[in-house]
Amino acid sequence: MRLYEETLESNTIYEGKIITLKRDKVKLENGNIAYREVVNHSGGVGVIALNENGEIYMVKQFRYPYKKTILEIPAGKLNKGEDPLECGKRELCEECGVKAKNYISLGEIYPSTGYVDEVIHLYLATSLSKSQQKLDDDEFLDVLILPFEKVVKMVMSGEITDSKTVSAVLKTDYLIKNTDLLK
Amino acid sequence: MRLYEETLESNTIYEGKIITLKRDKVKLENGNIAYREVVNHSGGVGVIALNENGEIYMVKQFRYPYKKTILEIPAGKLNKGEDPLECGKRELCEECGVKAKNYISLGEIYPSTGYVDEVIHLYLATSLSKSQQKLDDDEFLDVLILPFEKVVKMVMSGEITDSKTVSAVLKTDYLIKNTDLLK
Repeated sequence: MRLYEETLESNTIYEGKIITLKRDKVKLENGNIAYREVVNHSGGVGVIALNENGEIYMVKQFRYPYKKTILEIPAGKLNKGEDPLECGKRELCEECGVKAKNYISLGEIYPSTGYVDEVIHLYLATSLSKSQQKLDDDEFLDVLILPFEKVVKMVMSGEITDSKTVSAVLKTDYLIKNTDLLK
Repeated sequence: MRLYEETLESNTIYEGKIITLKRDKVKLENGNIAYREVVNHSGGVGVIALNENGEIYMVKQFRYPYKKTILEIPAGKLNKGEDPLECGKRELCEECGVKAKNYISLGEIYPSTGYVDEVIHLYLATSLSKSQQKLDDDEFLDVLILPFEKVVKMVMSGEITDSKTVSAVLKTDYLIKNTDLLK
């Protein structure tokens, strides 16, 4: 079969809190044997929350893999079996203390297709109202409210790098400029 | 210190061909102890190659973590110490048989900030000419040449999901519509 790899064996190397690592033996389309390292993740949700003044909510937090603070849209990890939209609503409320009446799907992104199986669901939230922020005891972040047009410029200048944020911001910018969805 | 996590111990769980997995013990800003699972990756490069007819080169390949074929811009893994632009030129040539005179940086993206340290460098390549495709013996992919405007629609409809492709396509679309860079 063209463009297909058959799993011959699947071996779990590590089962952690956030990820599981597997090393699978596969048969390639030319019959050769290869090994694939795969990081399993339950999936994530990111929400771009746009208020009536044309501003969006952003969170700044220390991201340990990069050993620095990173500016992102509010987001979180899907619990097993959880509906992505419900997860997005929960995370927006917990991280930013915001609820929204309207949610528009911005689709899904696959962060790094070679070795990760995570799917990140993206939503645009509008008609916002205040709610109660509920951070975990060990969760630390700053909430920033920034003009959407400024965030677009930060994406284009390379100041914002997080892939779900880049995708959600530029998809929203496209919708604003090319459709009536946000009129 | 605010928004900082101090590494107390770093433990390597697995050293593979593509990734290394670590589980580090950290001290949070409230003094509590936590553990961070981190996937180390040497980084990647993606190239959006735009020809004079307004078309771009795309590659379709089986991506084992998702168990299906995925449509992406040509891309590859950085060798240790390799210059990202040189890597981009190499991958564009190897995967698509294309060389380019002009390269514009589209910045970097971080695919999934919570547990991966990969940086993906993005470039836009123009003034293309034919070269020789050189796939590895165990590398299988189809090259497609698609109208850029069609690819933008596939990104917006959710048909294209790969984060580096979504980011590179929408950044290029923004540059075309809002700057003189591609005039």
